[in-house]
Amino acid sequence: MNFDPQTLRYDERGLIPAIAQDAENGDVLMMAWMNADAVARTLQTRRVTYWSRSRQAFWVKGESSGHVQHLVDMRVDCDRDCLLVLVDQTGPACHTNRRSCFYTALRDGAEVEIMAPVADPD
Amino acid sequence: MNFDPQTLRYDERGLIPAIAQDAENGDVLMMAWMNADAVARTLQTRRVTYWSRSRQAFWVKGESSGHVQHLVDMRVDCDRDCLLVLVDQTGPACHTNRRSCFYTALRDGAEVEIMAPVADPD
Repeated sequence: MNFDPQTLRYDERGLIPAIAQDAENGDVLMMAWMNADAVARTLQTRRVTYWSRSRQAFWVKGESSGHVQHLVDMRVDCDRDCLLVLVDQTGPACHTNRRSCFYTALRDGAEVEIMAPVADPD
Repeated sequence: MNFDPQTLRYDERGLIPAIAQDAENGDVLMMAWMNADAVARTLQTRRVTYWSRSRQAFWVKGESSGHVQHLVDMRVDCDRDCLLVLVDQTGPACHTNRRSCFYTALRDGAEVEIMAPVADPD
């Protein structure tokens, strides 16, 4: 790999936001953070890997839940300070068991739930 | 409006990331930041309004360029620390005159430009 993740722009914590988008239907699934090593690991393994701010550790998405994200394409924005990862998402992306984390719409001053949890196949 | 933007979770600068997505075709156009007042203004005016970190001022998208974003739907994620704004985008969203800021793909260790600037109609 010639691309050097250090050439991206990270914030003062050494992190860059990464937006995960369903490569198939375009749905925005979630946003999380990566550091330079997580970017490198994601590109090398094709398993989307974030940096968990709460645990201060690599977060291989789906490692415990099985709801993995296979990297289809990674893109960087014009300012080099935000990533877009197009993914093949297994199961729900959200810890609430919904396909996307963005399941609450703000409409006419109210919060409206627009997405139900995915049915458990078991 | 009953929804209170202060109930969202902002970072230590008082900002929340906002992902702009083309409401028509699902393309992710850009990511920028809002503070609570920018969230309120966006909901009230339906003109997507960010907070410019460099200028430390409200940034009514397209105010000078004409490349405005009309708000179609605003969504908040499960952690209440990220927004998704579905927009009706006039012209290019990117200052490079490309439709999206995410026009560079990282493929096989190389940076590949996958989107050309929009042709100037004049």
